[in-house]
Amino acid sequence: MSQSVKALAANTKGDFASFNQTVIQRRNLRPDDVAIDIKYCGICHSDVSMVQWQGAHFPMVPGHEISGLVSAVGSNVTNFKPGDRVGVGCFVNSCGKCAACKAGQEQFCEHGVVVVFDSEDDDGTITQGGYSQAIVVKDHFVLHIPDELALQDAAPLLCAGITTYNPLKRFNVGKNSHVAIIGLGGLGHIAVQFAAKMGAQVTVLGHSESKRNEAQQFGATDYQILKSPADFQALAGHFDFILNTVAADMDLNSYLPLVKSNGVFCYVGIPSNDIHFNLFSIFGNQAKVTASNVGGIQMTQAMLDFAAKNDIKPQIEMIGIDDVPQAYQNILDSKVHYRYVIDMSTLK
Amino acid sequence: MSQSVKALAANTKGDFASFNQTVIQRRNLRPDDVAIDIKYCGICHSDVSMVQWQGAHFPMVPGHEISGLVSAVGSNVTNFKPGDRVGVGCFVNSCGKCAACKAGQEQFCEHGVVVVFDSEDDDGTITQGGYSQAIVVKDHFVLHIPDELALQDAAPLLCAGITTYNPLKRFNVGKNSHVAIIGLGGLGHIAVQFAAKMGAQVTVLGHSESKRNEAQQFGATDYQILKSPADFQALAGHFDFILNTVAADMDLNSYLPLVKSNGVFCYVGIPSNDIHFNLFSIFGNQAKVTASNVGGIQMTQAMLDFAAKNDIKPQIEMIGIDDVPQAYQNILDSKVHYRYVIDMSTLK
Repeated sequence: MSQSVKALAANTKGDFASFNQTVIQRRNLRPDDVAIDIKYCGICHSDVSMVQWQGAHFPMVPGHEISGLVSAVGSNVTNFKPGDRVGVGCFVNSCGKCAACKAGQEQFCEHGVVVVFDSEDDDGTITQGGYSQAIVVKDHFVLHIPDELALQDAAPLLCAGITTYNPLKRFNVGKNSHVAIIGLGGLGHIAVQFAAKMGAQVTVLGHSESKRNEAQQFGATDYQILKSPADFQALAGHFDFILNTVAADMDLNSYLPLVKSNGVFCYVGIPSNDIHFNLFSIFGNQAKVTASNVGGIQMTQAMLDFAAKNDIKPQIEMIGIDDVPQAYQNILDSKVHYRYVIDMSTLK
Repeated sequence: MSQSVKALAANTKGDFASFNQTVIQRRNLRPDDVAIDIKYCGICHSDVSMVQWQGAHFPMVPGHEISGLVSAVGSNVTNFKPGDRVGVGCFVNSCGKCAACKAGQEQFCEHGVVVVFDSEDDDGTITQGGYSQAIVVKDHFVLHIPDELALQDAAPLLCAGITTYNPLKRFNVGKNSHVAIIGLGGLGHIAVQFAAKMGAQVTVLGHSESKRNEAQQFGATDYQILKSPADFQALAGHFDFILNTVAADMDLNSYLPLVKSNGVFCYVGIPSNDIHFNLFSIFGNQAKVTASNVGGIQMTQAMLDFAAKNDIKPQIEMIGIDDVPQAYQNILDSKVHYRYVIDMSTLK
């Protein structure tokens, strides 16, 4: 029992030219399901990584930054009704019973969270993501998009937004915090807005003079390009919290001393190589080095509400479904100007 | 204006045979000074490292685990009187005015903490440590040793004790905590006692079957020798807090997944090589990797009081002053059975 919907699927590992329009099956509504007409879907770097991944299933429909309108709800659903503006992010199922799920951290479900595509769901099917006309998702994993947020702006927040909001909240960024954001790309430009609206003094640590003005427009109070040891020395012990949105290798022995005593250096971009540093780099400040992995459903809703209230939105470039292969290549070449969003009405 | 006291000094970098008995100067009492007759001084691995350090000043009197009796106090000192049982640990001066000092974290003084030996004090002299008959220290940096603690047992607590107590407190180890201590040496055997008396379930991760019984005597509820991937898998996500007391290189990609969601992996032993790990090792648990650096004066006093109240003491091997060169070599060769303490009455 299922419904056919149009979708864009990658057919061959690592081959962006293998994307083609196809038809996939969505399950009929269970009592706790929400059916969604997808209007927009963002493209995240991790979509690209999944298409390149050795262990992926093909054909694969990527996409985990989904926004749209409710078309129907199951018999037990009380929190959504047809026409509601909604979003779906990185995951669509979890056990709901383990300590992590009960703590609202479904991403760490002890029985394995079910991600929105290329993941085995509880009925044994492999999930398919947001590059499609419609999706059916258990109500717990559907987010309300506030009226103040345009649907196309909400889409990237479902991954890039929660990925940056979660660590800022987890480490209590607020008034009087001194925060550095490394990198002003798809993640960084949203992180700057969140941190600034939380009341922090925000410094962007960037690589290019061309982004200085944009950093300030997003709310940064300072923009620094660190090159010499003296540049680093001038900011030693300055930051309560550094969020690293750049996946490239970097000299942590230079960056870690920028953290204030007992402060935090947090990765949200994941380099493929091991990170390495000398412990003497953190012996004088007891800095904590950590990583952050998206965020739970309750916090994702709080993030959307905070963004709506504070006029936070990603800078997006809208593309049609046929532009996806080129967009993937541009992301790999760092040519994306913040974030691509696919207009799903172009799926024919 | 100064007083001559006997001491043991190292005269040549890296040459333990260069230790000889000599006479050094201690300053006359300032109004806020405490003069101490040293009874015992522990030997810490970092003493050995300092004698080997390229940047050290010679002759050098090491020693930062000092216990003894007050012999005299300056005119403004109200907290100590002659005859009091006291200790001195890693540092003897700081600015007292910066944010770190005001927060009771003198070790992070923004103007540079003055350590007990081989450090420039505010009068321009180079400090000399505890392998001597007497020392003069500003009252703020002198600790009370509770009556329940023998002076020789208190000595190693001034460094090894606070080094392990501070991170356990900083990360809120207590009842219901699952703690792992890696290594059962000079630091580890004290850490196990603290964690157990704080109410935690303590697992020692050791290398040798021979230490299993001792681990249990110190209060560990479990002892594990991890070798195979299956050994690590069996403890995945098990620990709120892992304290690594071993300075040797280790495979962090195996150890970090043992941490529970949002838990901590903390170094107190400092490897000379960079540490390295893949961020995917902490992407599933958001573990924080950090280091801990002794602890402030207020917490050091709390540590001594906690040790006294809970009958916590180091396992020590008492030696005479002439045994120091051999003790240094034994420490390098990992032949010390927990901790050496020098009986300072052997200094002639």
